[in-house]
Amino acid sequence: MTERDGGRPRSYREAGVDIEQGARAVSRIRDAVRSTYRPEVLGDIGGFGGMFAPRTEGMVEPVLVSGTDGVGTKLKLAQLLDTHDTVGIDLVAMCANDILVSGAEPLFFLDYIAIGTLVPERVESIVAGIAEGCRQAGCALVGGEMAEHPGVMAPDDYDLSGFCVGMVDRPRIIDGSGIEPGDVILGLASSGLHSNGFSLVRAVLVDGHEDELGLARVDLGGATLGEALLAPTRIYVKSVLGLVRAGVHVRGMAHITGGGITENLNRVLPEGTAARVVRDAWPRPRVFDVVAEAARIETDELYRTFNMGIGFALVLPAAEAPGAAAALRAAGERVFEIGEIVQGDGEVVYA
Amino acid sequence: MTERDGGRPRSYREAGVDIEQGARAVSRIRDAVRSTYRPEVLGDIGGFGGMFAPRTEGMVEPVLVSGTDGVGTKLKLAQLLDTHDTVGIDLVAMCANDILVSGAEPLFFLDYIAIGTLVPERVESIVAGIAEGCRQAGCALVGGEMAEHPGVMAPDDYDLSGFCVGMVDRPRIIDGSGIEPGDVILGLASSGLHSNGFSLVRAVLVDGHEDELGLARVDLGGATLGEALLAPTRIYVKSVLGLVRAGVHVRGMAHITGGGITENLNRVLPEGTAARVVRDAWPRPRVFDVVAEAARIETDELYRTFNMGIGFALVLPAAEAPGAAAALRAAGERVFEIGEIVQGDGEVVYA
Repeated sequence: MTERDGGRPRSYREAGVDIEQGARAVSRIRDAVRSTYRPEVLGDIGGFGGMFAPRTEGMVEPVLVSGTDGVGTKLKLAQLLDTHDTVGIDLVAMCANDILVSGAEPLFFLDYIAIGTLVPERVESIVAGIAEGCRQAGCALVGGEMAEHPGVMAPDDYDLSGFCVGMVDRPRIIDGSGIEPGDVILGLASSGLHSNGFSLVRAVLVDGHEDELGLARVDLGGATLGEALLAPTRIYVKSVLGLVRAGVHVRGMAHITGGGITENLNRVLPEGTAARVVRDAWPRPRVFDVVAEAARIETDELYRTFNMGIGFALVLPAAEAPGAAAALRAAGERVFEIGEIVQGDGEVVYA
Repeated sequence: MTERDGGRPRSYREAGVDIEQGARAVSRIRDAVRSTYRPEVLGDIGGFGGMFAPRTEGMVEPVLVSGTDGVGTKLKLAQLLDTHDTVGIDLVAMCANDILVSGAEPLFFLDYIAIGTLVPERVESIVAGIAEGCRQAGCALVGGEMAEHPGVMAPDDYDLSGFCVGMVDRPRIIDGSGIEPGDVILGLASSGLHSNGFSLVRAVLVDGHEDELGLARVDLGGATLGEALLAPTRIYVKSVLGLVRAGVHVRGMAHITGGGITENLNRVLPEGTAARVVRDAWPRPRVFDVVAEAARIETDELYRTFNMGIGFALVLPAAEAPGAAAALRAAGERVFEIGEIVQGDGEVVYA
């Protein structure tokens, strides 16, 4: 079915690549991969590509929505802490939340792992995280590639990239075009830094502070800094799709990634509108205070670099906001009314 | 439309990332990306994911076939030679030829570029190659991510991964199940090493021989070794899809990658069959002689590591082979009848 799950993992073949190690890794992760399957996955057909027969009944014009992303330098922190079972969740989150913004349901996912030396236990941890992310996002892990790069990457080093395909019916694409002044902006709580801003975080909190990462901290409620920084990115797929399918008129959404609210929410605003966001409308998680103090950058720059506690935003008519917030809370989200749409120039302005 | 082509390239945002440089790169590659578009690409809708409305008219059950791959350590050679406009072709080829094996038409492609330092001219070259590969494969480049990893990767270093999605009607999936003794194996000429075996090639021909890579060689017909090694992977999509659509009963196909003919052609063989391949049935390109001499590995290992001149193989009824070969030649391929299916144990045996 996939390079790992069906055919021989070809990348192990080259000089310096330990095929036995590769085969063990394949065996270890097979169950994790299969735990993500949906009925649409065509198993055991062909060996060169993942196969998925999407259900399009009742759709006017099915549209495939795809996205790719990585986890960035958060991986370096995971490697430093020798914790490899959560970055896969980040990987799926970065891709699946992006697709969700258009109203699409994530269907399947593929991953690419470039690794210095293939240590089966480590790869198993990474893929376990990817599979967990796929289960959270409801998408099937239909393919993946492990490329061992001996002599090119350091033995302990790895990089991840992911690719997600979703589907939405064309008349139901959510693109922000219906947004108008008076609409309410709901923010969904993030689980922490998610997967952005880590080059800065590493520079001010990690490099030279390696010994402190494992210490429990009062200002983090007893968590260690390492735990707080590495908390996996929240996946908003199931709660948000539930809302959309219930018929709520969500007019626009934004996945708050690098660039923060400032440079992600603006991407969905139609001409003549702006987003007025009230910074006091939600509690700022403690980890952002720690980062802010260490980074010593001004507030505006903070909100342009980190999600500051809001990982996903929805814009909808004011009359529907209370009901939508209640439904999202019932689905497990922490929800805040973080602002409103006003007339303006396509910017996010803060109050 | 894509992270590069529509929304702000978020990965540039983090500390140490030069946003101006990123913006220049985005501008430079926009035209290349658009040159790959097909009518099914929905432009300018949404900013978080690439959108593609596939045509499914006349299909019984559309099946999406997806694959991911990288270029492996061939990238190191490209970096050494400072030649960046062909590895993108390799990237598309590795994914699109894999999908083709099931009879699927590649529809769209996404790339992920992890790079030490974002040099706009270099990124432009890389993406120009990816776009060229997409045009050769007939698929649209609907998304991509450039992730700058300052301090993690060396400034001149980069890694590429690609993701391709294709579609095939379920009754027309080609999976080798109809293969039977007496069927003929057609081989399509490769353009060189393609994208496999480079860890070995680097070890025996590149490391310590950097000065010789640029010298014209008589035993390579006047080409330099660098040129011969870096020749981009051939993309077989258009010729093979043309054959399949013409109604030829192709029963199985194999993309000859790492593992060579020996460990790729076997993947499509049904129980009770084997593939008997005649090594003299096609001319061995000169570059493989150079590699074989330097590597000093036995012949069987050569055919298990390199494509040895055959990049793609098709299995079909003997009666249809001559017509199919003629059609493939008319479509621009160099075609050889390289063997036949016999009774056996799922192996490739050589004569």
